[in-house]
Amino acid sequence: MANPAEGQSTVGAAASGDRSVAALAALVGATLEVPDGFDTSTTVESLETVERAGNRSLTFVGAAKYARLLERSPALAAVVSADVPLTEAARARAILRVKSADHAMIAILERFAAPELLPEPGIDPSARIHPTAVIAPGARIGPCVTVGAGASIGARTALLDGVAVYQGARIGEDCVLHAHVVVRERCVIGNRVILASGVAIGTDGFGYRPSPDGRGIAKVPHIGNVLIEDDVEIGANSCVDRGKFGATRIGAGTKIDNLCQIGHNVRIGAHCVLAGQVGVAGSSVLEDYVVVGGQAGIAGHITIGRGARIGAQSGVAKSLAPGAEVLGSPAVDAREFRRFFAAQKSGRG
Amino acid sequence: MANPAEGQSTVGAAASGDRSVAALAALVGATLEVPDGFDTSTTVESLETVERAGNRSLTFVGAAKYARLLERSPALAAVVSADVPLTEAARARAILRVKSADHAMIAILERFAAPELLPEPGIDPSARIHPTAVIAPGARIGPCVTVGAGASIGARTALLDGVAVYQGARIGEDCVLHAHVVVRERCVIGNRVILASGVAIGTDGFGYRPSPDGRGIAKVPHIGNVLIEDDVEIGANSCVDRGKFGATRIGAGTKIDNLCQIGHNVRIGAHCVLAGQVGVAGSSVLEDYVVVGGQAGIAGHITIGRGARIGAQSGVAKSLAPGAEVLGSPAVDAREFRRFFAAQKSGRG
Amino acid sequence: MANPAEGQSTVGAAASGDRSVAALAALVGATLEVPDGFDTSTTVESLETVERAGNRSLTFVGAAKYARLLERSPALAAVVSADVPLTEAARARAILRVKSADHAMIAILERFAAPELLPEPGIDPSARIHPTAVIAPGARIGPCVTVGAGASIGARTALLDGVAVYQGARIGEDCVLHAHVVVRERCVIGNRVILASGVAIGTDGFGYRPSPDGRGIAKVPHIGNVLIEDDVEIGANSCVDRGKFGATRIGAGTKIDNLCQIGHNVRIGAHCVLAGQVGVAGSSVLEDYVVVGGQAGIAGHITIGRGARIGAQSGVAKSLAPGAEVLGSPAVDAREFRRFFAAQKSGRG
Repeated sequence: MANPAEGQSTVGAAASGDRSVAALAALVGATLEVPDGFDTSTTVESLETVERAGNRSLTFVGAAKYARLLERSPALAAVVSADVPLTEAARARAILRVKSADHAMIAILERFAAPELLPEPGIDPSARIHPTAVIAPGARIGPCVTVGAGASIGARTALLDGVAVYQGARIGEDCVLHAHVVVRERCVIGNRVILASGVAIGTDGFGYRPSPDGRGIAKVPHIGNVLIEDDVEIGANSCVDRGKFGATRIGAGTKIDNLCQIGHNVRIGAHCVLAGQVGVAGSSVLEDYVVVGGQAGIAGHITIGRGARIGAQSGVAKSLAPGAEVLGSPAVDAREFRRFFAAQKSGRG
Repeated sequence: MANPAEGQSTVGAAASGDRSVAALAALVGATLEVPDGFDTSTTVESLETVERAGNRSLTFVGAAKYARLLERSPALAAVVSADVPLTEAARARAILRVKSADHAMIAILERFAAPELLPEPGIDPSARIHPTAVIAPGARIGPCVTVGAGASIGARTALLDGVAVYQGARIGEDCVLHAHVVVRERCVIGNRVILASGVAIGTDGFGYRPSPDGRGIAKVPHIGNVLIEDDVEIGANSCVDRGKFGATRIGAGTKIDNLCQIGHNVRIGAHCVLAGQVGVAGSSVLEDYVVVGGQAGIAGHITIGRGARIGAQSGVAKSLAPGAEVLGSPAVDAREFRRFFAAQKSGRG
Repeated sequence: MANPAEGQSTVGAAASGDRSVAALAALVGATLEVPDGFDTSTTVESLETVERAGNRSLTFVGAAKYARLLERSPALAAVVSADVPLTEAARARAILRVKSADHAMIAILERFAAPELLPEPGIDPSARIHPTAVIAPGARIGPCVTVGAGASIGARTALLDGVAVYQGARIGEDCVLHAHVVVRERCVIGNRVILASGVAIGTDGFGYRPSPDGRGIAKVPHIGNVLIEDDVEIGANSCVDRGKFGATRIGAGTKIDNLCQIGHNVRIGAHCVLAGQVGVAGSSVLEDYVVVGGQAGIAGHITIGRGARIGAQSGVAKSLAPGAEVLGSPAVDAREFRRFFAAQKSGRG
């Protein structure tokens, strides 16, 4: 073949509900406007952006600039936000009027989502479960998984291929740990937690002291653990180090993207959002609702106040007040940063 | 032992062709000049830099500064670019004159390369292949590999230890997926693709919306997939998120280094080069032949024009024209950046 | 459950020595001062920070600001540095006076550390050991491990779940390779090396040349290897690329944190410390005792002199003299950087 075909990419692997135009309109509480003769029982075959929609696609229009693209699109149907005006050309298809196309998108995505294909409930014969480990009913233990001495796995939790749960770790209910996740000894994970492939929970913290002979450095033992609260999601190949003593903690509902590094004894509050490749050094505190942009770094032993927002690639070396917005490395108030940068560009720096 | 010996490091594990000085000269079309009495049938035992070459080593000289080092080197032979002048002392060994020492190096490296030692063709007894999966003849399926329902593996493709191919994924021909690579459901990979160990293809994108209760955030389903075209190579522990709908796409021939993060619905063109630890946020487009330096970040929903070059650690927040060259965070035209920085250093900023 | 309880997090899984107040004082050579009636045979149940200590906890006070917190703490005992003055309220518990609370902490952490629970000596039945591989007595080979042709594993070394050792690799004695570590062909690892989960050793370097047809890029074979000397520790999901020819080398005692990228043919000296998410591009040299802050980047083909210190998020594009201290991207002398940034903030930039 030349290069892989893209056509089937958005078709869910299995139907999970009625996907007719009429049914989708009902699903999101839309007002449905259709051209003369349009059959509202027609099935939507894919979801697509306006630019890429085909004649069996449903698309989404949340802003006026996309409405113009809709005029030339073959899309079968469009979910359009209430405040977006449409020309007659744009209305040459089914229009599902909703308050917010963005919000309606979630319900429609859920209808199109393939059922998550987890391992069957039960324990794959190739898994190694220590006799003292406890596996709750309905748990799904995939091939080559290991569960160490005294560890426990909650009801309906799925451990995919090769997941390694070390001694004494405790995983709650309804979690999904993707292939090759590692949960080190005595770490504790709540309910409905999703860990993407390759996530490392409970690695030794990065702590050293001068060695007794004065020539090198000696490892500081890390005897704490990691506590991950309910509804946390952590992206692929991210790492959370265990505490030196006490716990490194990730608060309920917090979402961490791929390739992030969370140092030992960090305490992240509830409902924080950390984008990809963020690093948080040891013992820092992020209060609730903090948002951190991609590749930003947060130094050790500081506190980021509730709801603070840290821009992408920023370097934060000092504590931030609640609600602060910062940019740059070293990070400064976002308005100051923009002013400074604008001045430099105009030659008045 | 004290510390590991280095001696044997460059010796290929098995001969893969004649490695005599004469044969290597012929291989790269070199003009061969040797001192009196030199035996051109002498075998080269290792390839080395000029500084580290021993008396059975062949080395490479592509610039005048290395020619001077050659004078004191015991190297048996040197491949030298046509435009590099040599003193008599430098010529006290076999000199293989070529147009470009750099280009000749590739053919010689290939002759010294150990044959890649992949698993035997066939399916290791510890692998788990779903009955509905299709494994083409000549595929090499290593230990503890899993291939899910409806997935397909192309001819001669090698899946090394513990590779996990989820349901409905399709891998082309002549690919090599190193240990612990994960390819999530319905992702599609072309031919001759190399994925280094720990690569995560098709992880859920990082998309959330305020939850209905207004207190937290809700996960946006990602029902798309990832399409990787022919001849792509992706480095260890890098991640490519699946599309929200539609595909995240990596174009033919593109090379991505270790620990890179490619967000959902990103579209990377053909023959791009992304160095280590680069991040590209969701829905951005890189046209063909874009080059991105290490640790650079590219914001979401922007377009990087064909052939643009982005310096290491840059932060690109706005679209770039074809051929643009930028540096800095936020990134600016490379010439402007260098001028600004020079002015700051001289105190005239 | 609501969210996981934290109470038991710092209790070691098994006693490894006397943990009474008297015994711990003796362990670190402390002068012990106790209130009237205090029973020095009381057992310490956990180690904690001053803020979080309970009435069976021992805590550590290395600076005056923590001494004030100690006044209101229920802590059973505190290890206090000699130069920290204490009020009477602070002395309402056992005080273990030492020269340095930080140094005493290490010995006490070691006494509280759970014995590391490695796989049993021997070879798990699910491991795949090539008939020509050599496994030394006392090695601990866990489930789903593979060891390739001609590879060797030293005495007492532990390979945890799913570790993949490719052909001809050599691992020394007393090493611990955590779950899913990959050591590629012909790489050599010394003694007492610790590799955290997901570490990739010996991945192909990122080297390409224009392809013969001029349209794309061709892979440069990497026929070298990686040499890791004794007592090195590398954090989770970090990557060390193999040399093009010759070796990529990590010197004795060097510590590398999580998610770092070490390019092909880099040579890192002894006793260096690289924090999380650092990147070092191909062929650069770090001499001994170099310290690199988190997320910093070091360009290719440069030399960082002995004992140089590179700040977090710095970008180093030029060689640095021994003992240099730099900050910023591009990096400049640390004093100059601080002066420049202070001037900008005051509007005199």
